Amino acid sequence: MQIAVLLYDGFTALDAIGPYQTLSPLPDTEVVFVAEQAGPVQDDNRTLSLVAAKSLAEVSGPDIVVVPGGPPENVQVQMDNEAVTGWLRAVDATTTWTTSVCTGSLLLAAAGLLAGRRATTHWLSREDIGKHGVEPTGDRVVFDGKYVTAAGVSSGIDMGLTLAGKIAGDQYAQGIQLMIEYDPQPPYDAGSPEKAPAELVEFFRAGGAAQK
Amino acid sequence: MQIAVLLYDGFTALDAIGPYQTLSPLPDTEVVFVAEQAGPVQDDNRTLSLVAAKSLAEVSGPDIVVVPGGPPENVQVQMDNEAVTGWLRAVDATTTWTTSVCTGSLLLAAAGLLAGRRATTHWLSREDIGKHGVEPTGDRVVFDGKYVTAAGVSSGIDMGLTLAGKIAGDQYAQGIQLMIEYDPQPPYDAGSPEKAPAELVEFFRAGGAAQK
Repeated sequence: MQIAVLLYDGFTALDAIGPYQTLSPLPDTEVVFVAEQAGPVQDDNRTLSLVAAKSLAEVSGPDIVVVPGGPPENVQVQMDNEAVTGWLRAVDATTTWTTSVCTGSLLLAAAGLLAGRRATTHWLSREDIGKHGVEPTGDRVVFDGKYVTAAGVSSGIDMGLTLAGKIAGDQYAQGIQLMIEYDPQPPYDAGSPEKAPAELVEFFRAGGAAQK
Repeated sequence: MQIAVLLYDGFTALDAIGPYQTLSPLPDTEVVFVAEQAGPVQDDNRTLSLVAAKSLAEVSGPDIVVVPGGPPENVQVQMDNEAVTGWLRAVDATTTWTTSVCTGSLLLAAAGLLAGRRATTHWLSREDIGKHGVEPTGDRVVFDGKYVTAAGVSSGIDMGLTLAGKIAGDQYAQGIQLMIEYDPQPPYDAGSPEKAPAELVEFFRAGGAAQK
């Protein structure tokens, strides 16, 4: 089984690494990081590069594709990039699972792959994805046929484990969970707009950004 | 504030990316990925490289150092590598926080930085770290003075958020949690040896590995 993780300029690192770390231990699995051109690809902080081992042209038949998100302005560039959306359409024709994390679902939507489907995305982008003929949900992991979308950034870990269970069985996926010691104990309960302090939700809705 | 994330041949990707994604949004923060030599560094799956922007020699005074773990045999190579342990001792002299994820604590211990301290590590390495004069605990995130250690792989996210709160306050850290939508909903409750099915724990204790 080949899993292709798409990289592009300004993606969010954990969006890609969450599914990678949970899906790569599956049996007989090869993971390939892929980008328009092979080579280093910068993340949204511009301080980290992951290396794409292959170009899009070199990866034509993955069984699973994983599309990470990034800040909306970075994702928009790829939504307008036919090299990327065309590749997504082409490989989707033969994938077993087509997946995304965070605003990566906007990229799947722009490629026309989510029309009429239920999907999730980063909580700040729920309205945006609705504009693409997609039925947005606030769920953390959404399966609709072979399309699997996850909410913001860290949700890719839950998606990866859930998908691992569907592919290799519950016990195998539990083994993956145990080996990455995924027994979350966040120090706060502020991980969704429904749970976080209202003033924080408003701050980010108004366009506030974490200082850099 | 400069945060140095150490990379070395065969590290585990999520160990590095969990703290990175939760600490990099701190105010006035620069993150630098560092390795013995600058350039691409392969992870434990040999399918992904992260780029070290700087060599150890180029990073002499980070405020925070983050040491990811990896499979014990890969960590052992670095425990025996004076270039790495010597650098850890040198930068630790002036860090505000010295941190590790998973078996990264073995590397801190080999550098002599955890003697007499409480620390955690991947659940399979608790006995090993006890051999280095460290008091092992099964806790997920352990603070002992300025030394912060996290349990296996995914626990670096909890460590990063906890440390972010100590540095920038609870509300700031909650903002980071909200923006990475860290509202974990694992499909199973098998993320620790106390919770996972006993036969899985035994399988891995006996040296079993997830198939590749």
